[in-house]
Amino acid sequence: MHPLQTLWDDVRELSLGTTAEISRLPSPPSPLNFLRDFVSANKPCLISSALRHWPALSNWSDDSYLIRSLSSHPSDDPSLVSLHLTPNGRADALAPHPTDCGSDSLCFASAHVERVPIGEALEMIGRSGEGFVAYAQQQNDCLRSEYSELAADCEEDIPWATEALGGCLPEAVNLWIGNQFSETSFHKDHYENLYAVVSGEKHFVLLPPTDVHRMYIRSYPAAHYSYSKEDRKFTLELDEPARDVPWCSVNPHPSLEVKDSEVSQFPMYFKGPKPFEVTVKAGEILYLPSMWFHHVRQSPDSQGRTIAINYWYDMQFDIKYAYFSFLQSMRFVSMHNSKSQNQAPADEAGSNLKDYLHINGSIPNLIESFEESEDF
Amino acid sequence: MHPLQTLWDDVRELSLGTTAEISRLPSPPSPLNFLRDFVSANKPCLISSALRHWPALSNWSDDSYLIRSLSSHPSDDPSLVSLHLTPNGRADALAPHPTDCGSDSLCFASAHVERVPIGEALEMIGRSGEGFVAYAQQQNDCLRSEYSELAADCEEDIPWATEALGGCLPEAVNLWIGNQFSETSFHKDHYENLYAVVSGEKHFVLLPPTDVHRMYIRSYPAAHYSYSKEDRKFTLELDEPARDVPWCSVNPHPSLEVKDSEVSQFPMYFKGPKPFEVTVKAGEILYLPSMWFHHVRQSPDSQGRTIAINYWYDMQFDIKYAYFSFLQSMRFVSMHNSKSQNQAPADEAGSNLKDYLHINGSIPNLIESFEESEDF
Repeated sequence: MHPLQTLWDDVRELSLGTTAEISRLPSPPSPLNFLRDFVSANKPCLISSALRHWPALSNWSDDSYLIRSLSSHPSDDPSLVSLHLTPNGRADALAPHPTDCGSDSLCFASAHVERVPIGEALEMIGRSGEGFVAYAQQQNDCLRSEYSELAADCEEDIPWATEALGGCLPEAVNLWIGNQFSETSFHKDHYENLYAVVSGEKHFVLLPPTDVHRMYIRSYPAAHYSYSKEDRKFTLELDEPARDVPWCSVNPHPSLEVKDSEVSQFPMYFKGPKPFEVTVKAGEILYLPSMWFHHVRQSPDSQGRTIAINYWYDMQFDIKYAYFSFLQSMRFVSMHNSKSQNQAPADEAGSNLKDYLHINGSIPNLIESFEESEDF
Repeated sequence: MHPLQTLWDDVRELSLGTTAEISRLPSPPSPLNFLRDFVSANKPCLISSALRHWPALSNWSDDSYLIRSLSSHPSDDPSLVSLHLTPNGRADALAPHPTDCGSDSLCFASAHVERVPIGEALEMIGRSGEGFVAYAQQQNDCLRSEYSELAADCEEDIPWATEALGGCLPEAVNLWIGNQFSETSFHKDHYENLYAVVSGEKHFVLLPPTDVHRMYIRSYPAAHYSYSKEDRKFTLELDEPARDVPWCSVNPHPSLEVKDSEVSQFPMYFKGPKPFEVTVKAGEILYLPSMWFHHVRQSPDSQGRTIAINYWYDMQFDIKYAYFSFLQSMRFVSMHNSKSQNQAPADEAGSNLKDYLHINGSIPNLIESFEESEDF
């Protein structure tokens, strides 16, 4: 058994479970239980009946309520919110490189962001699919800034999580308004994440940090969309100055046409243990542990909308993080390939996991780049 | 920087601190704080003023009290306790191999164990150094069996730890009665350990589980001492049937004569980051996290004795344990040596850490044994 396979299996057999299901709690846990069974173990859970007391659950399905509330914003006239526009609903995701037309050439594309009145934002989100996709997904603590008038309809924190995680309020609280046209590509955050769904459903695919090699994280040049309202057209341009972004290469839901190609490019993802999957419904909270990779799609409510709030709490950078960094620094290449080790991570060496483990019959070889070591 | 060095440094810079000191708490923490700041982080701490209410602190310095208490044992007449005898105070430790006289040949030697009345045990402990060393260190939950009449003088658990660790009583509670002639060699336990000193002092040397390679864990043939009272002589014999025990090769306190040789044999231990060191005094509790390597020496109180109780609580086998197993499975060998990889762990390939990292100028190479992998 390859040591990575052993690791992926071990963490499931010891702690996470060997099915695609995550733990479900019928109601919020005590802070001590939450800390012991989930945060300390770095293990996700879904909590039902977690938001019963939130006025948001009923109030926010009414557009006129949202518009009325946000129009009383003290600093803006009219109140403006940040709306993210893309041609396909995939902001902060891989896209074909705008200038290099090689078949495999990709970039990391950010959305076009406009600040618009909430009424216009809601209307554009509703028209997603008509040549653009609009998603209110500003991740800069927007509930407490752009949407501060709505904050009283939910909570400034999740009290049992705040107590478990050290007593400080969340570092950021973000509001998300979108629908089925938008998705969030695989990534991880350096926060403990409490993800509360207010309306509609969110569909998460999750992988633990032990599975980092299965994400095929590579560097992609950063690019951004610009949208012209007159032409109703998007252009995608590389960032200036140029910069690279390390990003997960895997799309867990490839279309039928590219499925075979994706499977052979990313065998450790598609042929390894099943990812965890969970649907979070209105009124539920997902505890998404720090450093977990997550991909998110969504289904709208009867109003055609998915609304959620996530709470980012500071994570502890402890022994788990040190282990993760060590694991991530490992690069796997075949023995006969070892001379070009720094250039050729093993995930590019074979077209499926068996080849990857047994290239030309050689013994798999853990190797990493390193700098000249100092004598102690 | 070698990836192992990076790991050793990371865990100290992120969480444990870069000095040899561990965290000190003036009084017992709340269960939530203990769980969050220490257990979840797998980080030791020393708690002062932790045993103020224990009658043991005053009662147990009186031999006649101990003898009187244990003589009322219901099942034995007289009451017997397990006493461990060795020629040198090193039970469960490496010793010269009894039959293979090669200069480097070692075995793993267990003590001769006798069940004697408590009065005789205390007298023999006091006579340690006169051709033998006696240590009452039975680790089979002895406080609740052999020493059950003393249990009322301390506590059946550490309440704030029990609450933090899941609400169950300790899996085992052990009493230790010894003095400066006995020490405990480097090892780790698969338990969360609360170590309470009742009299005298215990001196711990600690290494986190991230530093496992610095322990040079190797397999040694098991052996045991037999002591003849008539001859006052120990003999050391290999266990039958033969079995091997994986054990740490490092002695953190080598004598001057062997220091150079030990340093060159175990450069990752002696030339890596300073181990943590802590002295636990009467009335204090050390939280010794699961999987931490520890070496223990002791100083006696004015009665010539060191008494301690340790509480072993079940540990969580979670993502930290999976990471540890992965780390431990890594074997480092030089590139040019890779054909004999499974026979030759790198820790035997070089005589100091620099050589180890740069054998013949080759790039260090992570490699592990593996079995034929199954296709997914």
